Amino acid sequence: MKTMFSKAKIKLINSLKMSKYRNEHRMFIAEGSTNVLDFLQSPIRIAELFATQNWLDKHADRLKGINCSVVNQKDFEKITALKTASEVLALFAIPEYPLLDLTKINSLVLILDDIKDPGNLGTIIRTADWFGIHQVVCSTETVDAFNPKVVQASMGSLARVVIHYHDLFKILQSKPENLPLYGAVLDGKPLMEFNKCDKGIVLIGSEAHGITNNLLQFIDHKITIPTFAGSKAESLNASIATAIICYSFRNQ
Amino acid sequence: MKTMFSKAKIKLINSLKMSKYRNEHRMFIAEGSTNVLDFLQSPIRIAELFATQNWLDKHADRLKGINCSVVNQKDFEKITALKTASEVLALFAIPEYPLLDLTKINSLVLILDDIKDPGNLGTIIRTADWFGIHQVVCSTETVDAFNPKVVQASMGSLARVVIHYHDLFKILQSKPENLPLYGAVLDGKPLMEFNKCDKGIVLIGSEAHGITNNLLQFIDHKITIPTFAGSKAESLNASIATAIICYSFRNQ
Repeated sequence: MKTMFSKAKIKLINSLKMSKYRNEHRMFIAEGSTNVLDFLQSPIRIAELFATQNWLDKHADRLKGINCSVVNQKDFEKITALKTASEVLALFAIPEYPLLDLTKINSLVLILDDIKDPGNLGTIIRTADWFGIHQVVCSTETVDAFNPKVVQASMGSLARVVIHYHDLFKILQSKPENLPLYGAVLDGKPLMEFNKCDKGIVLIGSEAHGITNNLLQFIDHKITIPTFAGSKAESLNASIATAIICYSFRNQ
Repeated sequence: MKTMFSKAKIKLINSLKMSKYRNEHRMFIAEGSTNVLDFLQSPIRIAELFATQNWLDKHADRLKGINCSVVNQKDFEKITALKTASEVLALFAIPEYPLLDLTKINSLVLILDDIKDPGNLGTIIRTADWFGIHQVVCSTETVDAFNPKVVQASMGSLARVVIHYHDLFKILQSKPENLPLYGAVLDGKPLMEFNKCDKGIVLIGSEAHGITNNLLQFIDHKITIPTFAGSKAESLNASIATAIICYSFRNQ
C-alpha cells in the first residue's frame, strides 16, 4: 500500500472535478463515508479508493479485491472538494445505462428540464431515493450528475437512482398515452386535488425559466403547489417543489 | 453620480461577505434585482445602492431619496458573490427585531436548531415565506441569515420573514402549553396523520445531528416524513423536510 497521493493522482483527481475530464476518463469522485459505502454496495464499478488507515481498518470486510491506498488526513485536505476533508475518497466508473423506454415505465419517474444548480440536482436525487423513485431523466442542459457537488448533495442516493440524459422533446414524443405527465407550473390545479400516484412522470422546470415552451404540449396535468393567501414569494426552489410533489404522490 | 466602485467601497463590500464585519458595520449585501427590490419594499433600511445605468433607468420611480451609484457591468464582475454578476447590488442595515415572545404567538413559527448550510437556510426562509410563515427562530449556532449565500438563496423572502437568533433552550422554556411544538424526527408519527395546523412551532434539527438532545423534552408531537417501502435513503435534506411539513400543515 502507498501512503500518500502521487502527483499524478492529485492531477487526475483534480481533473475529475471538471466535466470535460470526467467524460474523457469516464470516472467520477465520491467523497465521504456514506457516499463511498453506498457506491460500493451498488453495481457501479470502483476504480480506486483512498482512505485513512483508521477508515480502512473499520471497513476492511467491505474492501476485498479493491485497489486501496492509505492516505493521511493532511493529504486529504489538499484534495478535498468539501469544507471538512473526509477520511475516504474513491474513484468510480461512470455507469452506462441503457436508453430509457417510456413504454415500459410502470412507476414514478422524474424528468428534469435544465436544472442548473448542482446542490438542487443532488438534493432531488436524494429526495427521489427517499420516495422510491429510481429513474430520473435529465435534459442535456441539466448539470452533470457526476459533478462532485451533485454527488455530495445526493448523500449516497446517486448509487441507487439511475440518471439518464436525453433530449427531452424526443423522449417525450415516445410517451405512451397511459403514462400521465404531471408538469409543475404556477397556474395549475392545486396539488392536494391529485390522488396518490404510483405510475407517471413528474416534469420539473429549471430554476430560472420553469418548463421549456416546447415541452408544455406533453403535459397531461398541470400541478401547482398553492402559496399561502397573501404571500409575496414568487416561487419555490426547484428541489423543494419536486419534494413536495413526490411526498404528495406517495402519501396523499 | 459616481461611475465605478471606489477602492474603499470594494473593500467594504468584500468585508461584508464575512460575519465579523457584518456585525461590526451592522450592514449586509443584497445582490440581484429580485432581492434588492424586495428589500426596498420592506421596512429594512437601505444604506447604498450600486447598479448599471440600465437598471437605474428601469426602476427610477422606486429609487427616490436613495444613495445610488452607477457601476458598469465589468465592475460588478469584480465584486459579485454570484456566478453571473447581477446588474444591482445594495447595502442594507441589518434589522433589529424585538425579542420574540412565544406567549403571543398565534400562527406557525419555525425553529431551526443549528442549520449550518447557507443554501439550506436561504431555501427554508424562501419556503417559509411561500407558506405564510413570518417568524423563524434560529439557534445561535445556525449560519448567519445575512450571509450573502443565504440572502441569495432566500430570493427576496428575507425581506418578509423575521429572523431571530436565540438560545433555543431558554426560549423554549417560555413556551406556553397551548402552543404545540412539532419536532421533525426519524421515529415519529407519519406526517399525513397530522391535520392542518395554523398555530404552533415546527422544530427542525441540524443537517448532521438532527435535534439537539436537550431540546427533545419540549417536543409535544414527533413528526416523521415516511420513506417509501424499501428505500435505503437515510434521511432527507433539512430544507426539504421543512418544506414538506409546511406544505402539509398548510394544506392537509
